[in-house]
Amino acid sequence: MAIQSTVLTDPLLTSSPSRISIGGGEQWIGSFSLKTKPWHLRLSNGSRARVRAPLNADLKAVGIPHQWYNVVADLPVKPPPSLHPKTFEPVKPEDLSPLFPDELIKQEASTDKFIDIPEEVLDIYTLWRPTPLIRAKRLEKLLDTPARIYYKYEGVSPAGSHKPNTAVPQVFYNAQQGVKNVVTETGAGQWGSSLAFACSLFGLECEVWQVRASYDQKPYRRLMMETWGAKVHPSPSSITEAGRKILQIDPSSPGSLGIAISEAVEIAATNADTKYCLGSVLNHVLLHQTVIGEECIKQMEAIGETPDVIIGCTGGGSNFAGLSFPFIREKLDGKINPVIKAVEPAACPSLTKGVYTYDYGDTAGMTPLMKMHTLGHDFIPDPIHAGGLRYHGIAPLISHVYELGFMEAMAIPQIECFQSAIQFARTEGLIPAPEPTHAIAATIREALHCKETGEAKVILMAMCGHGHFDLTSYEKYLQGKMVDLAFEEEKIRASLAEVPRIA
Amino acid sequence: MAIQSTVLTDPLLTSSPSRISIGGGEQWIGSFSLKTKPWHLRLSNGSRARVRAPLNADLKAVGIPHQWYNVVADLPVKPPPSLHPKTFEPVKPEDLSPLFPDELIKQEASTDKFIDIPEEVLDIYTLWRPTPLIRAKRLEKLLDTPARIYYKYEGVSPAGSHKPNTAVPQVFYNAQQGVKNVVTETGAGQWGSSLAFACSLFGLECEVWQVRASYDQKPYRRLMMETWGAKVHPSPSSITEAGRKILQIDPSSPGSLGIAISEAVEIAATNADTKYCLGSVLNHVLLHQTVIGEECIKQMEAIGETPDVIIGCTGGGSNFAGLSFPFIREKLDGKINPVIKAVEPAACPSLTKGVYTYDYGDTAGMTPLMKMHTLGHDFIPDPIHAGGLRYHGIAPLISHVYELGFMEAMAIPQIECFQSAIQFARTEGLIPAPEPTHAIAATIREALHCKETGEAKVILMAMCGHGHFDLTSYEKYLQGKMVDLAFEEEKIRASLAEVPRIA
Repeated sequence: MAIQSTVLTDPLLTSSPSRISIGGGEQWIGSFSLKTKPWHLRLSNGSRARVRAPLNADLKAVGIPHQWYNVVADLPVKPPPSLHPKTFEPVKPEDLSPLFPDELIKQEASTDKFIDIPEEVLDIYTLWRPTPLIRAKRLEKLLDTPARIYYKYEGVSPAGSHKPNTAVPQVFYNAQQGVKNVVTETGAGQWGSSLAFACSLFGLECEVWQVRASYDQKPYRRLMMETWGAKVHPSPSSITEAGRKILQIDPSSPGSLGIAISEAVEIAATNADTKYCLGSVLNHVLLHQTVIGEECIKQMEAIGETPDVIIGCTGGGSNFAGLSFPFIREKLDGKINPVIKAVEPAACPSLTKGVYTYDYGDTAGMTPLMKMHTLGHDFIPDPIHAGGLRYHGIAPLISHVYELGFMEAMAIPQIECFQSAIQFARTEGLIPAPEPTHAIAATIREALHCKETGEAKVILMAMCGHGHFDLTSYEKYLQGKMVDLAFEEEKIRASLAEVPRIA
Repeated sequence: MAIQSTVLTDPLLTSSPSRISIGGGEQWIGSFSLKTKPWHLRLSNGSRARVRAPLNADLKAVGIPHQWYNVVADLPVKPPPSLHPKTFEPVKPEDLSPLFPDELIKQEASTDKFIDIPEEVLDIYTLWRPTPLIRAKRLEKLLDTPARIYYKYEGVSPAGSHKPNTAVPQVFYNAQQGVKNVVTETGAGQWGSSLAFACSLFGLECEVWQVRASYDQKPYRRLMMETWGAKVHPSPSSITEAGRKILQIDPSSPGSLGIAISEAVEIAATNADTKYCLGSVLNHVLLHQTVIGEECIKQMEAIGETPDVIIGCTGGGSNFAGLSFPFIREKLDGKINPVIKAVEPAACPSLTKGVYTYDYGDTAGMTPLMKMHTLGHDFIPDPIHAGGLRYHGIAPLISHVYELGFMEAMAIPQIECFQSAIQFARTEGLIPAPEPTHAIAATIREALHCKETGEAKVILMAMCGHGHFDLTSYEKYLQGKMVDLAFEEEKIRASLAEVPRIA
């Protein structure tokens, strides 16, 4: 595929996605702006069989999907390829071999619609899957809304978030290829602990570079990784060239996800017996997460509901894609027509304020160039509590789907997010991680809008993890000490000036 | 019922339960010592319907029980009554009214075999129930044992343990009676956070007295309670007469569960609009926890398995009773014949080293006298990591069942427990709370014994909660800094001298 030329315009003017015009495709895309609700399937077993406590019980009778869904197969325009960071040529499978096992490289470039989940992975998924789909009845009551709110809860996994959905297959494919060591980066620790968990089950050695600020401030996630047998380094570290360079400039650098990625990639690239794992952004990661949405489609059908709005938070975007991509297939098939909304932190607004262009996935510029909405690869987001959303870019596949007009995006500041999280925790009983508080805040906005209009919309929300290791953030909020970090246009302008120009 | 006289003998000589001889009952009880495996039910749907990932998926199709089970109804000898702390007369319902709502007082004395779970409680149970029953295949492989190990995992509840199973109905019955405030004690915080969770759902005010040592050392549990809207005081506090008395003697007292109970009971007894909740020990608490065992019986049947050994940890005993009592019914019915084992910390060995006698449930002597295995109500257990098991006594109903010979007991020191927990975490992927590490250690002992004998026993273990807030304990173990606290006979002798003599 030819690479489209990208003109860098003022990022602040490109906040809404442009509609791409493709011969004959325009009308087809436009058909989704229908306001009338299309006909959709309701399974015959949608009626509630039990009178008492039926919801969750029925839902749990839904099995685990046996295939992941690859949205690329159904998109009217294929996404632009990743480029080699030095040659700017489309990346070839052999370029990725030092980092990933063959099966994951194949999945990264696959256009197959469905990919079988290996038996060994399914076997481990049964530890926590199917995850519950829960109706937020008490929250609805508090908000006095006619909307029906459902949330798909991934916090029941051993590591407490959706991340093990991809950690397990990534480690499995590495183990299958005889790899003995894997390395990765982690911010607050959700991803690192998920990979440590998966490695402990398959007997692989695991080394994690954790962003220094989190390493120092959130010791519990580090202890969790160590309990599962992983080795954890603060990043920047003096172990790598990339880390040493940063430390030379700033010996007390708090680190960033981009720096930690550079360190882990360097180790994998320079050690033949070691591969690299990434917790979000890449196609194969998003693919693995579709187990969430596939399961949820069956669960919604089982209770005879169809989502009108689907909401998820985005950092790298894997949780959002995991829930929404299977529903996008149903939307493309004309079965349903939900509005699909990504919610990002106001302090790190890649989709709503970034530029859609080729950029590096890490700070040092070692990863392939990916076409994505980016704030610039050396943009260091302000230290908001949602550490998992502090990434300069977003998954290229989400960027592409956004450009195609199949989804919307919005940004919310953190005080509103925690205010919403407290409402959720005190009615639904689950304490959310800082990341999904963004989805909760957007859901509450939507539900309150329904109260005004009287619409009984069905809102489906991605509740991607619990906040057991983030309670000091809640303490800050409850003590009135949380601040909304201002969005700094100048800072983004500066980092965007460093983005490579791919002609 | 007449109160039996109790002779205090050397506690170290009474570690194995004496067999009670009741007219005609002896033979019946003795029939359980059969070594042959009795016939037992296997449901027709026990065959595995799905080839892939069947276990958990099938199990989740099992619904939530709609009744709690009251083992009192089936016991050949009824348990001795609780006594008024001043008059030593059997406690009357009106004596308990200042502390508990009517429905819970009724349940406390009930001899009905089954008690319906209210719709409102079932509705909240669906947030996390049915909880998974998981086969520990990877642990079996590590141990190279022919045994089949299953664990029933209660850590998926919002508060992370089995405690919400009783917190929810306790708060429900209080709410039903118009109570606006409840108070309680908590050690490490499992129970306090469960009650805070339940109160947030029913809109009750919740105040918790948390043992000072935990309040200072484990801020995350306190933050969890505050996130759910509860007010948390360190205990001993200057708010109560009981607390002030302790502080006068020792202003820097680290507190204990017994002291914290005294404080909460005092507040409830002296405030007409406030009731008290207890997280273990009492009959109604054990009753509510039987939802675990009832669910588990159906799950075992669904996969065509019958337990040969059932293992759970004991502090107050509610988790152990919750899993085992329904199986004791099946045992009394002659359907199955499992060995049932309680595992307590070597540093707080009430069943194996205590005396079976009437004692207070709290330090100040404000609660009714209960006949139980006790180390003395002013025994302060050494600061082992399993804070939830640091209680001087045990549920009177468990003591009674133990005396009747329907179960066994053993004590394990904490280093072996954490060693076992690491094996479990690195094979099964779940990090246990310090309390269930005792059950895990006993399970591993049993599985290794099976390896020696070649027996393919089915071991069922109560895995009552996760260790997300206890990771500093794992750090201590991994750094080799954990110590086994010696069992101090002198200390127990001293505290037992303070136990009241009920003639």
